[in-house]
Order: sequence, then structure tokens, then C-alpha cells
Amino acid sequence: MQFSSGLLENAVNEFAKLPGIGKKTALRLVLHLLKTEQDKVEHFGEAIVKMRQEIKFCQKCFNVSDTDLCSICSNPLRKQQLICVVENLRDVIAIESTQQFSGTYHILGGIISPLDGIGPDQLNIEALVQRIKNDQPDEVIFALNPNIQGDTTIYYIQKKLQSLPVKVTTIARGIAFGGELEYADEMTLARSITNRLPVENYVNNR
Amino acid sequence: MQFSSGLLENAVNEFAKLPGIGKKTALRLVLHLLKTEQDKVEHFGEAIVKMRQEIKFCQKCFNVSDTDLCSICSNPLRKQQLICVVENLRDVIAIESTQQFSGTYHILGGIISPLDGIGPDQLNIEALVQRIKNDQPDEVIFALNPNIQGDTTIYYIQKKLQSLPVKVTTIARGIAFGGELEYADEMTLARSITNRLPVENYVNNR
Repeated sequence: MQFSSGLLENAVNEFAKLPGIGKKTALRLVLHLLKTEQDKVEHFGEAIVKMRQEIKFCQKCFNVSDTDLCSICSNPLRKQQLICVVENLRDVIAIESTQQFSGTYHILGGIISPLDGIGPDQLNIEALVQRIKNDQPDEVIFALNPNIQGDTTIYYIQKKLQSLPVKVTTIARGIAFGGELEYADEMTLARSITNRLPVENYVNNR
Repeated sequence: MQFSSGLLENAVNEFAKLPGIGKKTALRLVLHLLKTEQDKVEHFGEAIVKMRQEIKFCQKCFNVSDTDLCSICSNPLRKQQLICVVENLRDVIAIESTQQFSGTYHILGGIISPLDGIGPDQLNIEALVQRIKNDQPDEVIFALNPNIQGDTTIYYIQKKLQSLPVKVTTIARGIAFGGELEYADEMTLARSITNRLPVENYVNNR
């Protein structure tokens, strides 16, 4: 792509570094900003730089936060005795959107994946164990993606928690609502039969 | 979407204002920037704000430029006697990518479209007429999108240029290379028959 302006080229190249944004999309976005009022573009730039400079990670759960303790950990209405362990921030946002969970979170920052070179030491696992020792919660719920790495991570952490007086659970796995049995993979279907529920539970939880 | 950080929410909202970027994509981009080194994010923000603050429009052709006269208009190797009239900057980039055009451009900044409320006065048409009067180029080539608005714009400008000693042409319209006759629309096919070329022209231009 040939540009008649170095400033334009620079801005396009910066946008094109973002994931999933190619040169053509980058150009479209930059031309949009070129037509936008100057102070709005300055707002855009400032919001992003300020976010990167000033954002903190909650000292307790490693969620992003504007203060030392995030708004969930510092909320007296959230059950501090219930910790939901997730892989990353996106999972927190997904669970918060359900409005069904009133406990707190613990963000691991990834899952154990030797193939990607990610071992337990790179994750916030030791901090979780310490947190459980200190705060003595009633229950730890694992909400990790249902795959080999997720299961490995659960197994590893659960081993570390064995000696502690805390109930360890995992989110239910089974056929998704609206899914069809005949298209479910064998593993999911097999597990959903093994972990079958009494119908009264099912009806009550609807 | 629920956020635990106002800074994060702000950055996501700013990204989501860009065309074609929804909340989920915005979050993905912001989380990417959160993992990026701080000075790189600062570069990103600066490049965009600087572009918007400092970019100029060429006084001659209305192309974006770092200086008063763009790099194409000030290039002595480009034929100043040949002006290609285009709708916008994207068209300049598309034509420049072909490396087949060695003249200069004139960017209208849009096309006449009464339905969208765009009349001749909002476009750089008067400047084009003045430029042709002053510089007396040999030829003006219209490279506008082949639709009703494009044709209207060509007709309008051509009327204004009638009294001036300049050759006025338009880019060829016909069946695109690699296209198939049976799927071409009737208008294109009909025009391509009316405007048929001698085979020696075709062979020489390959």
C-alpha cells in the first residue's frame, strides 16, 4: 500500500499491529478517525494510553481494577466465602453477565499447558493457595474451559488443596441448552450420563 | 457487559465507537493492549492523535499530506498535465497500487448524491475547475465508481469543463478480468459491446 503521508502510514501501521486487523481495515479505521473531530480523537488516544498506564490488578483476585482491591473483592454484598477460579478476565465478564454468581473470583492468568510452555509457576496458583489458607473460604468453584489443559489445571490445584478444609467443585459439564443429543461429542454425552441429575434438581434449577 | 474497572470500560467504549467494531471485538483489542508493553501502547496512542492533529490536505489535489503540497503533486517525475479525478483517498491508494498511473490526482471528497444530501458545493469541484483553468492540463480522467451517482458527477463536471481546452476521459468499463460473460449484468455487458476495442489495442495493452 502506497501512502502520500507518513503520518497516515504510521497510524495505519499502528492499527494493523492489533490482532485481527489487517492493512485494509486499519486504513478504514484511520480514515474514520480523520473525519472525526479532533478532540474526540484525542479522547480516544488518551483513554487507551491512560488505561495501560494506570490500570492495576486486584491484589486479591488479579482482576483488573482501578484500585488496589477490585470492585468485586471490596463489595460487602459479594460472598467472600465462595471463590470462583477462572482462566482470565473474559471469563469473569461472561460469568458476571449471567448475574447468577454472587461470590468472588480468582484469575489464574492462563491454564497449565506444557506445549505452550506454561507451567504452574507462571500462573497465580500459589497466591490462590495462600488466599485459601488465609481466608478459609467454604467453597472453591473451578470454572475453566472443559479441555485437557483445563482438567490438568484443576487436577494440579486440587492436589494442592487436598489438605485444606475447603469444598472443591467444578461447573457442570453436559449438553448445552438448545443443543441436540445426536450432534454432541461422545465425551460430553458420556459425562452427562455419568453425572446425571435427579429430575427434581433439574426442575428446581430451571 | 460488566467491568470491574472504569479505565477498562472507557477504553472498550472508545474502541467500540469505531466502525465495524462491536463491544466484544473492542474488549479483545483492549485486552491485547493491556498485555502489550507500555511504551508501545503510548506509541499507538501518539501516532493516532498526532496524525489527526498534524495531517494536512494538499492545497492542489486535496490528498492527505504532511506538507502543504502532497508528495505526488510535488514530485517532478509525475505528469502534471494529467489529472485523475477520484472520489476519495482510498481510490488514490487503489490506483497507486497498480503502478500504472504517472499523473496527478484530484480528490472530490465524495460524489454528487442528492439522496444523501451531497450537492456539488460540498465537493472540491470548483477547485478542480480553477486548477484546470490555471494549470491547463492536457487531459482529465474520471475514475469514479460506475453507478448513477458517479455518472451524474461526471456529467456535471464535464458540463463545466466544456468551454475549456482539455480532453476529458473516463476509465474503461466492461467485463472485469477473470469475470464471466454469463454472470455479467446487462448494463455492463451492453456497454462493453458498445465500447468495443480493436483487437490490436487489446493485445498491445495486455
